[in-house]
Amino acid sequence: MVLNVLELVGLVAFAASGALAGVRARLDIFGVVVVGLATALGGGIIRDVLLGVQPPTTLQTWYYLSAGAATALIVFAFHPHVARLHKAVLVADAVGLGVFATAGTAVALQLDAPVYTACLIGMTTGIGGGVIRDLLLRSIPLVLRKEIYALAALLGASMVGLGHVLGLPEGPVTAVAATTVVAVRLLALWRRWNAPVARDSA
Amino acid sequence: MVLNVLELVGLVAFAASGALAGVRARLDIFGVVVVGLATALGGGIIRDVLLGVQPPTTLQTWYYLSAGAATALIVFAFHPHVARLHKAVLVADAVGLGVFATAGTAVALQLDAPVYTACLIGMTTGIGGGVIRDLLLRSIPLVLRKEIYALAALLGASMVGLGHVLGLPEGPVTAVAATTVVAVRLLALWRRWNAPVARDSA
Amino acid sequence: MVLNVLELVGLVAFAASGALAGVRARLDIFGVVVVGLATALGGGIIRDVLLGVQPPTTLQTWYYLSAGAATALIVFAFHPHVARLHKAVLVADAVGLGVFATAGTAVALQLDAPVYTACLIGMTTGIGGGVIRDLLLRSIPLVLRKEIYALAALLGASMVGLGHVLGLPEGPVTAVAATTVVAVRLLALWRRWNAPVARDSA
Repeated sequence: MVLNVLELVGLVAFAASGALAGVRARLDIFGVVVVGLATALGGGIIRDVLLGVQPPTTLQTWYYLSAGAATALIVFAFHPHVARLHKAVLVADAVGLGVFATAGTAVALQLDAPVYTACLIGMTTGIGGGVIRDLLLRSIPLVLRKEIYALAALLGASMVGLGHVLGLPEGPVTAVAATTVVAVRLLALWRRWNAPVARDSA
Repeated sequence: MVLNVLELVGLVAFAASGALAGVRARLDIFGVVVVGLATALGGGIIRDVLLGVQPPTTLQTWYYLSAGAATALIVFAFHPHVARLHKAVLVADAVGLGVFATAGTAVALQLDAPVYTACLIGMTTGIGGGVIRDLLLRSIPLVLRKEIYALAALLGASMVGLGHVLGLPEGPVTAVAATTVVAVRLLALWRRWNAPVARDSA
Repeated sequence: MVLNVLELVGLVAFAASGALAGVRARLDIFGVVVVGLATALGGGIIRDVLLGVQPPTTLQTWYYLSAGAATALIVFAFHPHVARLHKAVLVADAVGLGVFATAGTAVALQLDAPVYTACLIGMTTGIGGGVIRDLLLRSIPLVLRKEIYALAALLGASMVGLGHVLGLPEGPVTAVAATTVVAVRLLALWRRWNAPVARDSA
């Protein structure tokens, strides 16, 4: 139940991030919906393919697709002023990252994946949608940029894995872990936490 | 039988679109064959992975690969004048899109996927090859450009799904649906049917 | 046993090629590790998805990930002078290509894939990691460039397939085939073996 709500939140957030990035790239309404849906459904499809859930869950019921498409259309109609789009993409992406990384881990655990594997698949689920969005729009993937990204997803996934090992209730743990990822990612963006770049010679 | 012929037509069309785009990007003969094969086989491999057909059909018999490679080599030897390559890519791509979106839906239905799921997988099969081609060549994916693309694929996939629900014979329905997609897509290109772009502020 | 050692060599080589390319693209330490891991694990994950090994082997035990991450971190700390990075990427990529194309074929044969299918999956395993690296970093994929690449991978995969048909011992055959691929690829780079480019008109 908590998991279902979280998944929907992540889906809407990623659909919004994709649609906002599409508007920013001056795509028309179809392109915006395609990027929104690819971002929203991509992570979950990757998760299901890695776990052997075929056909993928998100292609089996109409409400995932509808929620994603509706979000993209609403963004298309009421997007923020273009100058503010970049920030909006980053915030929506942070929410999607946090929710999908942790809910993806929980789903993998429910399907009896080992804890270690579940954490990696969860992290991949969180990162996947954003990578697809950035590849389609030919921008530098967020996961390669200067602020903490994959590490935040791995942190959240590990919290869910740890909760599972300790036997804690899944719903609340996932919610707390997702919130942590979003907080870490937004803090990293806001404070411009940067990691070192390699020296020029060695 | 009709389905096999259609699949071969789609494969040749997509191999040609990939090879033509490769020639246009000044690739050598190996690069042209690689892009041609990736475009021709990509959609079907995505379909099989989503449906759990492992290893994918197109990697199981030699004639898919041979037909794709032969097409790419013929294109390499006898491609149209470079100035006309862009149009040739678009036309070949439209044929591949139509055939793969509809034949992909029919294959998914044969493998007992629910109708709704089959339509989405069919649409993805149609779109997949072209997206791989455009990502490899670093061009803006056709699916994001201004003319109707994914919607045409979804239309054809839905026609096959509807025919299945109504119990109509699969072969002819698929052929008609494929032709419809190609016609819609070429009309959209020819008449430059555009969809609205988002306003600059809101 | 020989196969496990080879896989580890390929993984380290691809992790190094990804990390070197990441340093060259001025990524920070996280980005370098992400590209290194995606390059090192990508090919094997594609292989496992095509063969229906779910979850993928490389996500099931900690040492693949650790070896890849450690390699990326070492490269980050002690990479060659930036001016020489491009050559280092190419050499590491050649080793990864050779090992993964041949070991991938051997793994597919062990999982009872037909010889023809196993060779194609092996070739894809070899090519896959490098394509992911180049797409993430938005460079022209090596597989499309002028020197022999996919053909070298296919040659090595076919040698393993032929050895299997002839009933030769798997380990040594794979090692010889991998060495052949690396030699062919490095020779092609060194001697600038080029294939013809299409004429401008026809």
